[in-house]
Parts: sequence; C-alpha cells; structure tokens
Amino acid sequence: MLDTLDLELSLDKNSYKSQLETCMMKLRQLQNACWEKKLPAIFVLDGWTATGKGTLLKNMVGYMDPRGFVVHPIWPPTPEEQQYPFLWRFWQKLPSVGQVSVFYHSWYTRVLEDRLFDRISEAEIPTAMRQINAFERQMVDDGCAIAKFWLHLSCKELKKRLKKADDDPLDSWRVRPEDWQQVEHYEQYRGFAEEAIAQTSTGPAPWTLVEAHDARWAQIKVFTQAIATLSAALDRQHPQIPTQIPTPPAQEHLDPTEPNYLAQVDLQQQLSKEEYKQQLKNAQIDLRKLQMKIDREQIPVLAIFEGWDAGGKGGAIKRLTDVLDPRTYQVTAFAAPTDEEKAHHYLWRFWRQLPKAGKIRIFDRSWYGRVLVERVEGFATPTQWQRAYQEINEFEEQLTSAGYVLVKFWLHISPEEQLQRFRDRQNNPFKAYKLTDEDWRNREQWSLYEVAVNQAIQRTNTPYTPWTVVPANNKYYARVKAIETVIEAIENAL
Amino acid sequence: MLDTLDLELSLDKNSYKSQLETCMMKLRQLQNACWEKKLPAIFVLDGWTATGKGTLLKNMVGYMDPRGFVVHPIWPPTPEEQQYPFLWRFWQKLPSVGQVSVFYHSWYTRVLEDRLFDRISEAEIPTAMRQINAFERQMVDDGCAIAKFWLHLSCKELKKRLKKADDDPLDSWRVRPEDWQQVEHYEQYRGFAEEAIAQTSTGPAPWTLVEAHDARWAQIKVFTQAIATLSAALDRQHPQIPTQIPTPPAQEHLDPTEPNYLAQVDLQQQLSKEEYKQQLKNAQIDLRKLQMKIDREQIPVLAIFEGWDAGGKGGAIKRLTDVLDPRTYQVTAFAAPTDEEKAHHYLWRFWRQLPKAGKIRIFDRSWYGRVLVERVEGFATPTQWQRAYQEINEFEEQLTSAGYVLVKFWLHISPEEQLQRFRDRQNNPFKAYKLTDEDWRNREQWSLYEVAVNQAIQRTNTPYTPWTVVPANNKYYARVKAIETVIEAIENAL
Repeated sequence: MLDTLDLELSLDKNSYKSQLETCMMKLRQLQNACWEKKLPAIFVLDGWTATGKGTLLKNMVGYMDPRGFVVHPIWPPTPEEQQYPFLWRFWQKLPSVGQVSVFYHSWYTRVLEDRLFDRISEAEIPTAMRQINAFERQMVDDGCAIAKFWLHLSCKELKKRLKKADDDPLDSWRVRPEDWQQVEHYEQYRGFAEEAIAQTSTGPAPWTLVEAHDARWAQIKVFTQAIATLSAALDRQHPQIPTQIPTPPAQEHLDPTEPNYLAQVDLQQQLSKEEYKQQLKNAQIDLRKLQMKIDREQIPVLAIFEGWDAGGKGGAIKRLTDVLDPRTYQVTAFAAPTDEEKAHHYLWRFWRQLPKAGKIRIFDRSWYGRVLVERVEGFATPTQWQRAYQEINEFEEQLTSAGYVLVKFWLHISPEEQLQRFRDRQNNPFKAYKLTDEDWRNREQWSLYEVAVNQAIQRTNTPYTPWTVVPANNKYYARVKAIETVIEAIENAL
Repeated sequence: MLDTLDLELSLDKNSYKSQLETCMMKLRQLQNACWEKKLPAIFVLDGWTATGKGTLLKNMVGYMDPRGFVVHPIWPPTPEEQQYPFLWRFWQKLPSVGQVSVFYHSWYTRVLEDRLFDRISEAEIPTAMRQINAFERQMVDDGCAIAKFWLHLSCKELKKRLKKADDDPLDSWRVRPEDWQQVEHYEQYRGFAEEAIAQTSTGPAPWTLVEAHDARWAQIKVFTQAIATLSAALDRQHPQIPTQIPTPPAQEHLDPTEPNYLAQVDLQQQLSKEEYKQQLKNAQIDLRKLQMKIDREQIPVLAIFEGWDAGGKGGAIKRLTDVLDPRTYQVTAFAAPTDEEKAHHYLWRFWRQLPKAGKIRIFDRSWYGRVLVERVEGFATPTQWQRAYQEINEFEEQLTSAGYVLVKFWLHISPEEQLQRFRDRQNNPFKAYKLTDEDWRNREQWSLYEVAVNQAIQRTNTPYTPWTVVPANNKYYARVKAIETVIEAIENAL
C-alpha cells in the first residue's frame, strides 16, 4: 500500500505560497465555525520520524486562535500512565467542544513503536486495533471531527534525513536511538504501519496518506484534507449537546420478549441479625486478605453501585470499605456533570477517575447514568442513549482487557420498601438530608426506570462484565452479598 | 510541646456513643451548609503511623454526603509528581466550592518523612515551611476552611501497635519499613513534628493536637474541632465568588509617588528588516542550543506573555517557538475561566498547566489577569485583587525555588499604534477574526489598565522573577527582544 505512493510529487514555491494562504484562511474560518457550533476536532500527525511534522505544525499554529488549539506531543508512556489502559492518557487530552487537539504522534504508537520494540505482544495487537477503532468511532459519534495523517518517506530518504540531523550538533540530541531503528527495520515497520492503516481507516476516521519527500506538497495535502474534514463535520452538525430537552421516550413496559431481570429477583431473601454479623465478619476478613494480594499483584479493582433511590448503596459501600486501608481505596460519587464535563464525551469524567494498579475504587453511580437517568429525563437523545450500550460495552472491555476487576451492582428493592424507607428518612432528622424532591419525582417514574434498568442489564451483561442484581429489601442480605460478590470477582482474577 | 500532652485522656463507651451521634449529625448539617454557601473545606489527618486515622475516617464517611466528600490518601510522590514543585500534587486535589477534602497524610510529609529520610536537605526546610504557610493562607483567604490534626502516640504505644500489626498476617503487609523508622528515630521525628507544628500553626490554619491513645477520645476531639472550624468559616462567610459584580475601582491615574514603568519605555526602539532577519536567526540558533541543554539538565521553563491587545503576543510566541522541537514545548492560551475553574482558587488552573522538567511552556495571558482584567472589569473584589500581589509573588517564588525558569513579558505599545493595528485588522480578512468588540471596550479603559499594569509590575517585580517590559511598537524589535530575554534567563539558570 505505502510503496505505491508517488514520492516524487512536489509543489513549486509560488503555487505553494498562494495555496498555503488560501488554506490557512479557510482553516481559520473553520476553526471559528467549530467554536461556534461547539464541535471538537482531532488531527493526528503520525508517520516516520523526520518527516517535517514540526514545520507543518508551526505553520498551522501561527494562524489558529491559540485559545482553541492545543498541540499534544506524545512520548512513550510514563510509569504512571502505564498503570491504566493505553487509551487512558489520550482520554485526558481530548478536546472539549469547540477545540482543536493536534496529536503529534498518537495512540498509534501502541501498534507501531510498541510493536517494533516488543512492548506489546502480537496476541494483543488485534485487541488494540479494535479498541482504537472503538475509541475513534465514539469520538466521531459524539460530534468530533477526526483527520489522521500518515507522513511517508522512503527508506533512503529517511536514512538521509536522520544522518543529516545526526551530523548537526543542534539537531543530533533530538534523534533517539529508536529513530534509527526505523531505518534498521524499515520493511517491518512499514508492514506494521500498513496493517494499522488498513485496519483503522474507517468511515468515521479515515487515514490520509501523505507523500512527504517534498515538504510543500505534504503541507498543502494535509491542510486541504483538514479543511475537508472540518467542513464535512460541520455539514453533519451532530447534535453533540442537545440544546433542547427532547420528549422522553415513554416506554412504560418491557416488550414481552425482553427478559425482566428485576421481576426475577427474589426479594424475600434475608439474613437474621446474627447471621449477618457472622457472615459480614467472615466476608470482611476474606476481603482484607485479598486486599493484600491485590496490592502485591498490582490489580486495579473498580466496583460500581447502581440501584433505586434508598436502595442502600451508601450502607453497602460503608460495609465494603469498613475493613479496607483508607489509603488503598477511594469512593467517588457522581451527580450531575459539571460544565467542563458536559463539554466532553460523557465517558470522559469516568476515565478521569479510574483506579490505578493495586488500588480499589468505588463509584457511587456511574456511566450507566447515560442509559438510566439521562434516558428517562431526556438529557440524552434516543440516538445517544441507544448508542451508549455499545460504547459502554467497549469501555468495560477496555478495562477488563487491561487487567481491571470490574464489579457492577444493581441494588433492587420493591416500590413498597422504597416508600417505607423514604418515610423513615423523613422522620429521622439524622437521615432527612438524604431525601430530596428529586427522589419523589424519580419514584413517580418507577415504571420508566424499570424498563431502562432491565434493558441496560440485558445489553451490557457480558461474560467478562456481568451484572449482579442484589435483592436489597433486606439490608443485611444486600450488604453481605455485595462484599461476597467483590471477593469472588477478585478471586477469579487472581 | 508534644510531650506535655496527657495521653491518659479517655472516654467511656456511653459518653462516646452519645457524643459521636451528636457530632455526626452536626457535621452533616455543616456539610450541607458549606455546600449551599459554596464554601470548600480541608481536613488534614497527620501524625504517627497506627494512630487510628483509618477508623476515624470510616466513621466520618458513613455520615457525609459522598458527592461532596473526597478522601485523598497521600503516598510518597511518584516520579511524575517529583517533576513539579512539591505542592503541585496537592493543588490538583483541592476541593471545589462546597466540597470537603480529607487528606490522609498531607503536604506535611515534606517536612516530616522526607526530612527523616534525607529526601530534603536541612537548608530547604525553612522554605518548605514558608511555602506551606502561604499555601494554606491562600486557601483560607479564598474562603476555604482548614482544620489540621496531629494524632499523637508515645514511643511505647507506637511500638506496641506496630508490633501488633506486624504479628497479624492481615495487617503486616501494610506496615512499611518507614513506619518502624518512626520508632527507631522517635525523638528525632517528634522534634521535626514539633518544629512543623510550631511554624505552621497559624491563625488561618491552626493545628489541633490529639491525644490518640484512647481511640474514642481522639475521635470525639477531632470531630468537635472539625465542627468548630466549619462553623467559624461559615460565620466568616467569605465572598469567595462575588455574586454581584462590584463597582470597579476607578483609579485613572497613578499616584505621583508610584513608578510609571510604561511611560519609561522608549517606544522608538526598532530594527530594520535586515537587522531583524539577522538577529532573529542568531537568537533562534542560540535558543536551539539551549533547548538541548534544558533537556539534558531537566530544567522546566515557563514564559508568560502579557501585553496590550494587538501588542503582538501571537507573533512573538510564533518566532519564539519557530525553531523549537514541537514535542518539547506547549503553548497554552488562557481566556475566561470555565465553571470548574471558577469553583477553585484562581491560581488552580495555572498550577494544572505547569511544564514538566526539561520542557518549555508558553502562556498566552496568565495569572496576572487577576490584577489586570479581573480588577478593571470588577470580576475580582478590591480585597481579592489587592491580596493577589502577594499570592502571585508566593506562587512565583515556589516555581523558582523548585528550579523553574520563569520569564514574564509585558508587550508595550502606544494607544496610537494600537488603533493603527486594530484598523489594519479590520481591513485584513485574514486577521479580522482577531479583533473583537471586547478589544474596543478594553481600549476605552486604557488609563485604568495603565494604572493596573504599572502597579502589577511594581508589586511583582522581584529579583528572582523580574518583568521585561518590551517596547513593541516595532514588531521586529519586540520579537527579537523576547527571544533574547528567554535565552538570557535560561543561560542564567544553567
């Protein structure tokens, strides 16, 4: 594929100058338009070393509004970054709405340089490719424009440029030994690149191959394609953030062919106080033992708690953490997103809070808000929440494939039990703060939530990330069940 | 100091139970009040190892609203964190308005454990103490409530507890060799603690010494003090975020005794196109050489550009970065703060963007906005912007004492030159986007800005972070001057 590029292509100085001027004015206008339409954009500059990516970038920088234009130079991951899924550090760098992020090298190092230097096994390559495709599609679905550029050189040209840089005392320090390895293993590296390009040149995020022997040609080609990408994205005008809240879909009952997970729950299950005390103690001792092992094996553990209001999430989390060393776990509660969070993909705020290797993190509510409250309240459009099942499955698969233990709970109670607990809270000054008007409003929409919860469970109940629906009318039973489930998940991972 | 504590103090089970209940309900109410008043709070739990901080925390967690309550366990800094000033990682963890952050160990490890293990030299201790005091005072001035607790044990008790933990197979893995060093060097460590407590027990952020032999006594003492701190902070009701924009102070002229830096600038200075080309080239070559050295010596460099609208910041930044490797520098432009940024101390967003060791960062506008646009437009109250000079000086001193090269530019042009440039922009479709209504509004307030700029320069022109006021009527001159100033600053640091 790459060897069919005509590397002789070039542009004379005058044509270049006039075309550059036009391109830049157009790009600048488009940047403005993206800002106004709240459309984020990503440019990926990848390819061989010494291809003139730097000069190209500098030309762009001079014409763009610096407040909405961020360049992210990508180096090999730091030890801290290596404790997360490989896409984690790129999630941290995603543009917010209206911004342009330029990646100077990118997530493709995972399937190029990492592969060349055996930092990733061949068996992991297909997974990485799939995760990259999912990542880019999620961005584009969210309204982001993506243009990816592979700047190509022949082996001879690459060698010539590296030698020139090496001989220049001002440049030589920038030439890494890894760069010379590209010459040494040119054919192999080209093969990797071709495979990556072939597998990730998707409809939403296609690659543009750039003949980079002539810098003028390469620049104009990149700018022209960048313009086309932004224009197309503006034309699509994704409703990335719904400006008006659409009418919520009013599915009050499950289709008879759909499984009703909640109806199947045996809410009679319970423990006596004595049983509870004993079993809780045993479970907590087991958990303490496991915490030692998690630390030793450097396994990240993430337990997410969803459930009906007053379902007992807080109490279950308290018992779960009671015996844990406070320096090894953190509880994060998620409420309505902040403005900054709203200006990013909805998964962004969860990516930012992932546990590191060896640590336990507990989420009080989670990304399932997208297909629960956001669906029922109409904060997400039907297109958005329907798409979210796949996005969530992909996200969770990225976690588990990176070694995470992920446990998902739905604490299930009956409407009658909920009413009882709401009333208890009303009458208990200690707990009254826990009850809000929103709780009463949510309660009125019980049947809508019931449909949403069942469908969420069905669509995201994968073999590697199963749901645990906990019968929670009896708090004792629910608490012990939650801890035991976490224990089991960790033991399976060990 | 610490040996005068009566470690025999204790509380019987019944008194404890009833007091705990009262404390918790009160704390919970105060958390709500803080949320409503947008008041952030910080609790610091420090002291010897094995003092029961964990149990204490767990008692709190169960009663607090998890959405506004975050526990930050503090471990030794990671290699990445070590590339920044030591307070950097704590700035990242500061509560936003309405939140409570609990630090389980804290920035005091810098003057305790780091000191015990010679990770900080004795000469650096006074600076660290001073920086801690400044840090805490800045938080409190911004409306934050701070309560700091030292949980104290006798050497004998400490040894007993560590031995017990060591003998318990479930606990032994948590006992670090460093913990035993506390027993080994008990007297020395206690001396360090006493020094830290004495020097940092300030009016805004006092220490509470807690007799921790009896866990019940210790808990109630901590909770009682936490309640007192929050109550006092609520009483103060700092106008942390001004809800109404106050009348801007209308100082249109400098006091005759104040130096007028801008008036002293010789705006006639210029370079011919030939001189410019030659000098720019030479300067850029020098800069490239230095970049190599910065990388080798792992020095972080931060250049901030302030100046009149149309003063030529963008052009100067472009020439500065023209020869730099795009993977070693980043340009960050600052506009109006986002909601999340507004919910934190105004310096927070700049702390988040600091360069790492060996990298160059360029800020297009900076924290000086606090004493310029925020002052003139009334976004900051007079109290806030007047206080900001000291806060800025402290911040900059923290950077330079951590090895940063900090260069501060004011690009100065005459009002006539600005008008000319505005008109040029109006008539040039390529540059029209750069001119906004805001620019014209700012121009009308030229004299107010002139006072603000002069006062900002005078109050923050320190020996270690001097200002460079660049005569910028002639763009050639200004660009060369900017690069040469950066070069000089780096050379001085090397």
